[in-house]
Amino acid sequence: MSGDEIYGWLSMLFPLNRTLAGPDTRKTLDFLKSVVPKMVIKSIDSGTKVFDWEVPKEWHVREAYVENSLGERVIDYENNNLHLISYSTPFSKTLEYEELSQNLYSLPDQPDFIPYITSYYSENWGFCISEKQKGQLGPGPYKVLIDTFFQEGELIYGELLVPGRNVDEILISTYICHPSMANDNLSGVAVSLALAKWLTLQQNLEFSYRVVFLPETIGSLVYIHENLEDLIRNVKAGWVITCVGDIGQFSFIPSITGNTLSDRISRKILNDQALNWKEYSFLDRGSDERQYCAPGCDLPVASITRSKYGEFPEYHTSGDNLEFVNSKSLQESFGIYRDILIGLERNGTFQANTIGEPNLGKRGLYPTLSTKASASTVQDLLNVYIFCNGERDILEISELTKLPMHYVIELANKLEAADAISKIKKPFP
Amino acid sequence: MSGDEIYGWLSMLFPLNRTLAGPDTRKTLDFLKSVVPKMVIKSIDSGTKVFDWEVPKEWHVREAYVENSLGERVIDYENNNLHLISYSTPFSKTLEYEELSQNLYSLPDQPDFIPYITSYYSENWGFCISEKQKGQLGPGPYKVLIDTFFQEGELIYGELLVPGRNVDEILISTYICHPSMANDNLSGVAVSLALAKWLTLQQNLEFSYRVVFLPETIGSLVYIHENLEDLIRNVKAGWVITCVGDIGQFSFIPSITGNTLSDRISRKILNDQALNWKEYSFLDRGSDERQYCAPGCDLPVASITRSKYGEFPEYHTSGDNLEFVNSKSLQESFGIYRDILIGLERNGTFQANTIGEPNLGKRGLYPTLSTKASASTVQDLLNVYIFCNGERDILEISELTKLPMHYVIELANKLEAADAISKIKKPFP
Amino acid sequence: MSGDEIYGWLSMLFPLNRTLAGPDTRKTLDFLKSVVPKMVIKSIDSGTKVFDWEVPKEWHVREAYVENSLGERVIDYENNNLHLISYSTPFSKTLEYEELSQNLYSLPDQPDFIPYITSYYSENWGFCISEKQKGQLGPGPYKVLIDTFFQEGELIYGELLVPGRNVDEILISTYICHPSMANDNLSGVAVSLALAKWLTLQQNLEFSYRVVFLPETIGSLVYIHENLEDLIRNVKAGWVITCVGDIGQFSFIPSITGNTLSDRISRKILNDQALNWKEYSFLDRGSDERQYCAPGCDLPVASITRSKYGEFPEYHTSGDNLEFVNSKSLQESFGIYRDILIGLERNGTFQANTIGEPNLGKRGLYPTLSTKASASTVQDLLNVYIFCNGERDILEISELTKLPMHYVIELANKLEAADAISKIKKPFP
Repeated sequence: MSGDEIYGWLSMLFPLNRTLAGPDTRKTLDFLKSVVPKMVIKSIDSGTKVFDWEVPKEWHVREAYVENSLGERVIDYENNNLHLISYSTPFSKTLEYEELSQNLYSLPDQPDFIPYITSYYSENWGFCISEKQKGQLGPGPYKVLIDTFFQEGELIYGELLVPGRNVDEILISTYICHPSMANDNLSGVAVSLALAKWLTLQQNLEFSYRVVFLPETIGSLVYIHENLEDLIRNVKAGWVITCVGDIGQFSFIPSITGNTLSDRISRKILNDQALNWKEYSFLDRGSDERQYCAPGCDLPVASITRSKYGEFPEYHTSGDNLEFVNSKSLQESFGIYRDILIGLERNGTFQANTIGEPNLGKRGLYPTLSTKASASTVQDLLNVYIFCNGERDILEISELTKLPMHYVIELANKLEAADAISKIKKPFP
Repeated sequence: MSGDEIYGWLSMLFPLNRTLAGPDTRKTLDFLKSVVPKMVIKSIDSGTKVFDWEVPKEWHVREAYVENSLGERVIDYENNNLHLISYSTPFSKTLEYEELSQNLYSLPDQPDFIPYITSYYSENWGFCISEKQKGQLGPGPYKVLIDTFFQEGELIYGELLVPGRNVDEILISTYICHPSMANDNLSGVAVSLALAKWLTLQQNLEFSYRVVFLPETIGSLVYIHENLEDLIRNVKAGWVITCVGDIGQFSFIPSITGNTLSDRISRKILNDQALNWKEYSFLDRGSDERQYCAPGCDLPVASITRSKYGEFPEYHTSGDNLEFVNSKSLQESFGIYRDILIGLERNGTFQANTIGEPNLGKRGLYPTLSTKASASTVQDLLNVYIFCNGERDILEISELTKLPMHYVIELANKLEAADAISKIKKPFP
Repeated sequence: MSGDEIYGWLSMLFPLNRTLAGPDTRKTLDFLKSVVPKMVIKSIDSGTKVFDWEVPKEWHVREAYVENSLGERVIDYENNNLHLISYSTPFSKTLEYEELSQNLYSLPDQPDFIPYITSYYSENWGFCISEKQKGQLGPGPYKVLIDTFFQEGELIYGELLVPGRNVDEILISTYICHPSMANDNLSGVAVSLALAKWLTLQQNLEFSYRVVFLPETIGSLVYIHENLEDLIRNVKAGWVITCVGDIGQFSFIPSITGNTLSDRISRKILNDQALNWKEYSFLDRGSDERQYCAPGCDLPVASITRSKYGEFPEYHTSGDNLEFVNSKSLQESFGIYRDILIGLERNGTFQANTIGEPNLGKRGLYPTLSTKASASTVQDLLNVYIFCNGERDILEISELTKLPMHYVIELANKLEAADAISKIKKPFP
């Protein structure tokens, strides 16, 4: 899976005006399905009650602009999706600047950027523009047209199920409701798509996998609502993937307890790669782990991002564009998540086959001549061995030995091949 | 409750010559009862066996002085209670200075201060004077008169019971056996009295309260002896209040395990007020927590002081006087303890009413327009919500969210009013 | 037990060419038995299967040398045991230097030292010499003679059992398979011998003791194999003693969990003596704890060394000689282990006899006059007392009070003598 391929998907999806429910969200899912055909697109009707919420209507935009007295469109949704507040109500009237400006949103501190603003759950209309552009607007009058409409339709989301030998599941979740923004969250969509494609290419998976693409908050609530019992029973680890395309260092947002399987393997793999990464508090969470970790659901869901949402200046502005992300960063992020899944797949529990240390020599695992130097070369092998008491899994042993998980897996495989340890069935706690 | 009122009580009690059992201890309790009439004065006969101890006789002083050959009283109990060793035996004889000096106590390193010395459990007589005064005494002879007597009587103590809805109790204990010393421990007596008065003014208390005023060590042993089963069964948190009137920073002496309800809420409230405070070890304890935390009783009793006993130079000297304490410090100390009691009263456990995050918008708890700024304003509310799983109480949630406890209470109340969470009954562990 | 006596034993044993099984290992055990006659010498036949291993044959050396064309023995086993690889096969041939050098081992970075090399489990021959000596060898030819032979015989080891009142056992293990090396490991042998002698002189021991002298790895595996059930059931603490004779600071290698009785009392006694010591990880282990702590056996075995094996440049070279160790260091090391055993012997659990603090005065444990100074002198006594709840043992109380263990024992004895606390029977957890 090359970074360029991931970046390519991202850039193809960039122009669409995604939102909670509407035509471009469907186009987005159709594209994802074209890459991973086994993904299923599911839907739920507008107005359906979902826990404390209600599935919103679809939002459709025909056109939206502000025209000056010369007939020039000084603000035009055609130029940038972000100009129109998401879920803006229809509006048509000629206004003086003073009136219009009540519904104009800009960022005085970031004069070049258009802000990204939504108004999903209260009726409102408005335009978002850069502070610079706002400064150039004269007194008016301005003809304002917002030709949008709401429609009883459906909220849709994508779900890929990849069955493994085990009913225990790993959840990957990302959101598809943001319009033209690259890091938040097309990077998450593209990396999740890469993982989905990679998973469908694997043989003999240990775990089963769910990869879901859904509108943030209401989408994950719908998904939890439809799958609550299965999720609680089966999901042993999960991640929300977002903001993984910029050049920033990695960030880790733990689950609510901070010591689940997701948390432990996230830290281990980040450490193993000797990356400079930062651990945030669960209090700093901000995406769908808010739903997955809530009381009554309480899944072991964490998140690894690069620059965390809300922490980079371009967040939720037009600055979060195709130049803000790059293929190398996307590939690295994909690599981290793929290595986590590989780690989980290979994370067995082993039992020593003998008492005391095994005779490595007769098993072909020991240098034939004992010298001062060779005295320490087998130490890693014996360190892994001595923790194999049938209780500790490879992840724990890699934590205890401070060795990279992939190396511990390699050593355990050598020991197993030499009949010094045996894999045992150990159910999840 | 103003600091001036608390200081006023303290200064009225200052002149009395309190001791384990005697007339001025009774006067002290009579005064306390005049402020909080619901307090009951209880007694136990001299000579009663109490665990490993015996209730001492009452000690009465008629007069005590040292007179020089000119008939001048160079040391006189009338001038300062501290001049006479507490529980001094009677004595009457004319002595040369050399003989007299065997029974004179002073502090060479603090030449201006009279030391405070007791001899409760071994027969002894003596005078305490400043090193300066001692230097001025000539060779003698001196007429020494100590007209004291011991009497089979009773040891008395005050107990205020304030019933709440819950049989679980909070214990406040302070000691009334020190003569004219302001910080150790009239400050503790006065602040406890303020808490007692404040408690009697509250409606609908959740917990029941015991506020006790008793002689140190033997008094708390008597109290434990008379109430052992109730204390063990009911007391869920408790504090010994002492040394709370000087300008020093706050000090915290934890209970024996250091992780009881008393310990956790003490640290939380001290932290919430952004005070500069110091945590001592349980090994540094020195007041009645020595009895309350002992094997066989083992109550969750901690202590918050200002400058800890033994840590300030004026401790157990005449320097611990009315100038050493002040009304502002007393008021602050009262405030800390009152806020702890308020925190305990409001420390509920809540259960989320839905799965996933609640819809704050429809519940009137969300700003109507989602902007970059507003995206984080509801985070505190949701942080409190997400921990409400029916197991964690407000104290724990305030620890986990690092938010002040009173603010978490406020947020929980908002969520409860909006029907997002419900209070549940949760018995003490 | 003087350091000089311990050093004397060490220097008498130094010249012998110890190995896994052979005549000088027997001479070594015979010497140990002459000092501690109650030690029993046990044996197991060559070829016996022991878990994953097989007991090796005895190795005998008649002579071994390299002779130049002038008939001079330029390398001669007679001069230093280390010249001959341990378990070298017989060899006899005239070789050019180029051929010979394939089987010469030296240390380029330590040109003065002869390395110590073994080849127990693969057939090999070779000589070890200093880099300096190697540089002086000409082109040859050299007559090489290694007159060794292997013999079906027995592996022998020494076992001293010292019974106490309790079936719970303490294990002391050291290895006797290294030839002329002083710190690794004659220092361990000599200090263990001192402990063995000291133990046989004690009366009324609480614990039972096993002190074993055995070849490293295969010897401890044999011992575990012969005693597995007893060891698992009875051993509550144990130490492997090695590298305890040099001037280096003390090192501590914990057991696999790091929190066993062995670990706790090791740290406590090292701390009590205010020594500068270093804690290693269990991952740094390297002696017979590798067997004792392995899965299926998993004994609480730790190790206190001075400079740890592998950490000093002289390790496994001729530099580890009689000058490298000294009697003072040996005596100190003996003292640490003896104090650990004394601590274990006296480590009781006590129950307070009263509720609240005891009346120290009437029990003769309190100064008769209460002054500012005396107020704190009894604090240690009361600190020990208050933790005596029938659950915590002296070791835990000394950890909690941060007082030296021997001092806590002394205070507990005073309290017990004054009838304030009583010793209770408490089985090992």
